[in-house]
Amino acid sequence: MLTYTKKYTVPYYESDANGNMKLPSLFNIALQVSGEQSHSLGVSDDWLKETYHYGWVVVEYEVTIHRLPRFSEVMTIATFARSYNKFFCYRDFVFYAENGDELLTIHSTFVLIDIESRKVVHVENEIVAPYQSEKIAKIIRGHKYTALSATTLEKDYHVRFNDIDQNDHVNNSKYFDWMTDVLGYDFLSSHVPSKIHLKYSKEVLYGATVTSRVDLVGLQSFHDIASEGKHAQAEMTWREK
Amino acid sequence: MLTYTKKYTVPYYESDANGNMKLPSLFNIALQVSGEQSHSLGVSDDWLKETYHYGWVVVEYEVTIHRLPRFSEVMTIATFARSYNKFFCYRDFVFYAENGDELLTIHSTFVLIDIESRKVVHVENEIVAPYQSEKIAKIIRGHKYTALSATTLEKDYHVRFNDIDQNDHVNNSKYFDWMTDVLGYDFLSSHVPSKIHLKYSKEVLYGATVTSRVDLVGLQSFHDIASEGKHAQAEMTWREK
Repeated sequence: MLTYTKKYTVPYYESDANGNMKLPSLFNIALQVSGEQSHSLGVSDDWLKETYHYGWVVVEYEVTIHRLPRFSEVMTIATFARSYNKFFCYRDFVFYAENGDELLTIHSTFVLIDIESRKVVHVENEIVAPYQSEKIAKIIRGHKYTALSATTLEKDYHVRFNDIDQNDHVNNSKYFDWMTDVLGYDFLSSHVPSKIHLKYSKEVLYGATVTSRVDLVGLQSFHDIASEGKHAQAEMTWREK
Repeated sequence: MLTYTKKYTVPYYESDANGNMKLPSLFNIALQVSGEQSHSLGVSDDWLKETYHYGWVVVEYEVTIHRLPRFSEVMTIATFARSYNKFFCYRDFVFYAENGDELLTIHSTFVLIDIESRKVVHVENEIVAPYQSEKIAKIIRGHKYTALSATTLEKDYHVRFNDIDQNDHVNNSKYFDWMTDVLGYDFLSSHVPSKIHLKYSKEVLYGATVTSRVDLVGLQSFHDIASEGKHAQAEMTWREK
């Protein structure tokens, strides 16, 4: 298992009103670092596209946050491809503070899709071999999401041009924006997340308006993003600042 | 006049559906680089806040774009404080491609405000001396914006939590998002800006809904951002891709 690391300083524009790193930025930079690992191993996204017409797609995140990175903090991000089976690749990210303390960890689940058909394909050994990832037979069971029993808050979000990435759909980091924004300024400036489960089920395209619904029960929030059908679900645990 | 330079590679998440660097990201990174120059000269934003209770605020941009930076392109960003007078500081940014070609230039106008009163203050020599900027008597005349005579398109934008920066108002880069998004996918995926004038007149706070209006006349667009009063105006010239 090869670990790739990168130092990163949190810039002003990736920090929120409280000086904490914004959630979407956290996932942007994580995926950037994993892309850099792929590139350094000769299996870049471009190579994957040209050779196989495949692309990586994140289907699930599980995040444990001890402390959010702060504006101008220098941290080290480590990532490695933990294991894979016929359909799923499991990749971890660990964000470390300068003194070596763990800030947060992300367990992610990826699939490979055929870029034309948008269908999930088998994971070829050749694609993942360079990461020295462990092949496992077992399909790791994802988090069980409970359907929203009530709606505390909901808000509509129009997809904007800058939400769309080069895969011609809404970038996966945007969902964190929609899911948290609905909680409002007072909640978000007095609470930080400590645990997040998020599952993507259907891509969102330009032109869509999605509804972000949340059921807030104490310090737990249950989320979904829907338009025609459900696009994503999440559960978050919060703590007071 | 001291020039500060930085190499920067355009990441995936700062690229739009066409693979061009997003306008808001372009201004984010420019301001980041000027912040780094201030820090390197011992006159960081933190120093300015602690010593004077002052903060830098951009009031106007004039941008000439030969070509937008592309996804994964390595460029060099140069910035220098060109000149200043009693109220305004003029700072330039030049983005260079790897072969030395000029990609774009930004002329920016900054003022210093008192953080408590939010009022513009005089530019103290001590604050700008380290940049070796030229003191001039003349107040450079800004662009003359013509009021919108008609509205081709308009759209409302709710301010989101992640739009707010540590100055507790909407970050100035967000305005580019609002101003361009209203033009729609078809226009934005077939046109790129070649010239931009943008003027900020009143900060936007959390809770606001702004209306982004545009009058598109051929390849020229006239913009304003309004809610209670006018927050910003812009004029852009576009070319077909």
